[in-house]
Order: sequence, then C-alpha cells, then structure tokens
Amino acid sequence: MFSQITIIGFGLIGSSFAKAVKALYPKTKIICLDTSAEVCEIVLQDQLADDATTNFAEGVANSDLIFLSTPVGVMGEVCQKISPALKSGAILIDTGSVKQAVIDQIVPHIPDTVDFIPCHPIAGTENSGPRSGFAELFVKRWFLITPLSSNKAENIQKISDLWTEIGSKVEIMDAKHHDLTLAITSHLPHLIAYTIVGTATDLGDDLRSEVIKFSASGFRDFTRIAASDPVMWRDVFLNNKEAVLEILQRFNEDLTDMQKAIRRSDGDKLFDMFSKTRAIRKHIIDAGQA
Amino acid sequence: MFSQITIIGFGLIGSSFAKAVKALYPKTKIICLDTSAEVCEIVLQDQLADDATTNFAEGVANSDLIFLSTPVGVMGEVCQKISPALKSGAILIDTGSVKQAVIDQIVPHIPDTVDFIPCHPIAGTENSGPRSGFAELFVKRWFLITPLSSNKAENIQKISDLWTEIGSKVEIMDAKHHDLTLAITSHLPHLIAYTIVGTATDLGDDLRSEVIKFSASGFRDFTRIAASDPVMWRDVFLNNKEAVLEILQRFNEDLTDMQKAIRRSDGDKLFDMFSKTRAIRKHIIDAGQA
Repeated sequence: MFSQITIIGFGLIGSSFAKAVKALYPKTKIICLDTSAEVCEIVLQDQLADDATTNFAEGVANSDLIFLSTPVGVMGEVCQKISPALKSGAILIDTGSVKQAVIDQIVPHIPDTVDFIPCHPIAGTENSGPRSGFAELFVKRWFLITPLSSNKAENIQKISDLWTEIGSKVEIMDAKHHDLTLAITSHLPHLIAYTIVGTATDLGDDLRSEVIKFSASGFRDFTRIAASDPVMWRDVFLNNKEAVLEILQRFNEDLTDMQKAIRRSDGDKLFDMFSKTRAIRKHIIDAGQA
Repeated sequence: MFSQITIIGFGLIGSSFAKAVKALYPKTKIICLDTSAEVCEIVLQDQLADDATTNFAEGVANSDLIFLSTPVGVMGEVCQKISPALKSGAILIDTGSVKQAVIDQIVPHIPDTVDFIPCHPIAGTENSGPRSGFAELFVKRWFLITPLSSNKAENIQKISDLWTEIGSKVEIMDAKHHDLTLAITSHLPHLIAYTIVGTATDLGDDLRSEVIKFSASGFRDFTRIAASDPVMWRDVFLNNKEAVLEILQRFNEDLTDMQKAIRRSDGDKLFDMFSKTRAIRKHIIDAGQA
C-alpha cells in the first residue's frame, strides 16, 4: 500500500492510526513528526513508530503518505513548514474535526505534485497523548472524506481502501455540509458538556464536593466529554464558528422553551418534549451507532 | 429481615429491587402493586414477584416494608389510597429523585403507626418497565436517606442495613440539600440532553438523517440520556422547580460566556474554560464514581 507513512502530531488519533497500520502492514515504515521532543522520546521508547523527529523536512522527506493529526489551529502553519520537503506524488490527508476552515488553511501551501485529500475519522476518547492510542479506535466508526475538485480519483480510492481495511465505514461528503452536521452531533454537545461541568466547578466548595461524590449518570457522562483535549476543542470552535453559533442559537431557543414550561409547571408540554426525543435514540440504535 | 415486601410501581427501580431482594432473601414474599393490569400480568408471567395486584388495599395489607417506586407525581395520591390498609409497625420508603416535594406530598397521608423514611437510590438506566430490572443496578451506587425527625433510629438502621447488603453505599442527607445537589448532578444534565436531542429532532429531514447516521460520541451519549422515561422526568422537573431553575440560570450565564468567546474568537478564554473542567473529572475518577 504505502512504503513509508509520516504521522504529524502523535496524539490519540496519530498513535491509534500508527497501531492500526502496523497491525495490517508490519513492513510499512512509520515516522513520527512531533514538535514535542518529549513526545518523540516516548514514541521511540515505546516503539510506537520506526523513527521520530522534531524536524519538519526530515520527517516528511521520503514518505508516500502524510497523515496530519495535529490540532486544527496549527495545520496551516505545519503545512507551510513541510511543503518544500514533500515527496512528489505523495498523498497528504488531515484528520481535522472541521473541514472548510482546514481546507482554506492548507491548500495554499501544498504544491501541485502532492494530492491533499481532506478527511475526518469520527472517533475519539477523552484521553490524549502518544500513549492513549489503540488499533481498534476506528473500527466500525465513520471515516469521512470531503474531497477537493483537484483530487485524483485513484488517490481517493487508495485512502478509502486503507480505511476500509482498518475497519471504518468510509463516506464521501461535502465540506460545508460536514461542518454543519458535526456542529450538531459533536461540537455543540462538547460545548454544553464543558459549560455544565464548568458551572459545577464554580460552585461553593461544599456543594462541589457533594457534586463529585454523588455524580450520577448524566453529569458523569458530561465530565467524561468535558475532559477532552482543550487545545483540540478550542481550535474546533474557532474554526467552525459560524455553524456552531447557528446551532447554539436554536439550542438556546429550545432551552428557553423548557425553562418556561418548568416555570409555568406545564407538565403536558414537558411530557411532549421528553417523549419526542425517544424516537431519535431508536433510530441511532437501529443505525448501529449506539 | 422483612417477611413480606410490597413494591408499588414495578418499573426499572421496582423490578431491580425485587431481584436484588430475592437474591439475598429467597423466602421474603414480594408483592407487586401496580395500577397497570398489563404490568401485573408480565410480573406473574415472568415470576418477577410472588403475587401481583392492581388493588391498593390488598397489595399492602400484610407487608412489613412498602417500597414506593412510582413516578414522583403520583406518590401522594398512592399513599392516600394505601393509607387505611397499611399494617401497624410497617416501614414505607420511597425512591423519588426529589425529596422535599415528595415529603410534603406523602406525610399528610401516613398514619402514626407507620414509619415513612424518604429515600433515593441514585441508579438508573435509560430503560423502563417491569422487564428492564436487574439485581446489580444498585451495586456500588449511592443510596441516600433524607430522614424525618419523626423516624425511629432502629428503622433507619434497618433500611440502611438492607441497602448495604444489596451493595449500595448508604448516606444520610438533608432533603433540601439533596434537591440542590441532584439538580446539578442529574436534573440539569437530563434537561440539557432532552433539549439538544430535541433541537436535532426539529432539523430538516435531510440533516436529521445525517445526524443520526454520523452521531458521534457526545450526541450519542445525550440521546441515551434523552431516552429516559418521560413521565418520571416530567415529575422531577415539576417537583424540583426551584432548585432546577436556579442552576439553569447559572448554566445559562456560563453558556452565554462561551458563546461570546466563540463569537469574538477568544481562544485564550476558550482554552481556560476547557482546561478547568478536566480537574473535576479527575476527582470523580478518584472518588470511584466514573
């Protein structure tokens, strides 16, 4: 498939991809390129890749596939730095949770001899860092490709085949549509979880320790989501601002309706609102995504 | 311990309690009292209790322990109906997720010869009905008792001992303090989850089917929470109005801050807000509640 792959940004996604590739193609050489010397040291120590470097040119020089899994906010800058050293004919894919802003950042830096295919594996845990990865992270999860008109069909096919082998379900999608869909399914839920856990953090000491102690289902799930990597999520919100603000506006209107119904003790309204949400859960279970 | 127990309202909590008691005390006679003839039929068919009835007086007549696990909104009415038939010396416990409103509803109907001890097992799943129960539901979960000044110490001890045997961690708490704590850890998270899943339900058909298809961690967790029993949750919000509205007000202020930071592209502010929430997750893991 690929004889050498460079993974830039060796966190949860990068290290999971390394393990998934090694399991399928033990002979493929994997290079870790990370700006943190500490991360490179861990990667070498734990043999998570065949080599590790903080040097941009060295890191990408001979690779057929560049896998860009840094936070979204630095992707443009990273591409500017690797650009002169990219091998002619190489494929570059990113893993950003936002697509249009990433495309706008990256495209200006990529030479015509390299095919940049924007991608997004929908998978993750609340853990981060080079030791958080595992080969099965992407199994049965979606891998979305939001191609550019300039992408070569055979390269899209190559990436699609690799991810199918890894165990993901691959789908082609429009970048703008991707950003709106993800704003609902992922970005807003994370924002809400961060907010509610933040509200609890600001409580007086006594009440806060009770909240921790008696943390029930509901809040407990939110704390897991709100433990996700802050740099990654900061960048998501900065780069998908428009779609997130639009969905947040709708959410706020609906929350105001709930608040009104509680204040007015309108039991019928509450019951109706709490009933209609069961259907969507059933659809998700039926779709095998639960 | 108890020779006969009546479980009123044979849903997730009631059926789980029945299984937990039967596992510990096979000789204890368990009576299901439920206003639904269909539920009683299932209970008898699946042998979930030794007997089942829709008749209030018959259901409680000879029981030493009455376990009230109906939705919060009907607890007062149920107690009024069982009151004349309660055995002298019996203990009555409820399982309401709200305590002060339940106490206010129930106390007027309970004769002096019966000891009503307000309780709340903090456990649940998104499933409901007589077939959703399992004996281990309460294991390692909190069982909160918010006693009345009239409760006999030996009866509180008896209930505490039973729940310790079931595997719960028992704690005594003030009713008002309970209601505020649970408003944060459980009621607000459920309200938010219902709202966000409701927002998604109202999307156009195309976008909604995409949301279901690509439902990622975050939204997926919310749909699970938002599939919880609508009657139970309607009653929780109607009966813990004051505490929920207070916490909701704080949450709204914090969400407005988040919204502002996104609109202004204030990355530092977002990073700070996303970083402080990690600490509370760590405390919850340390407290063994994760």
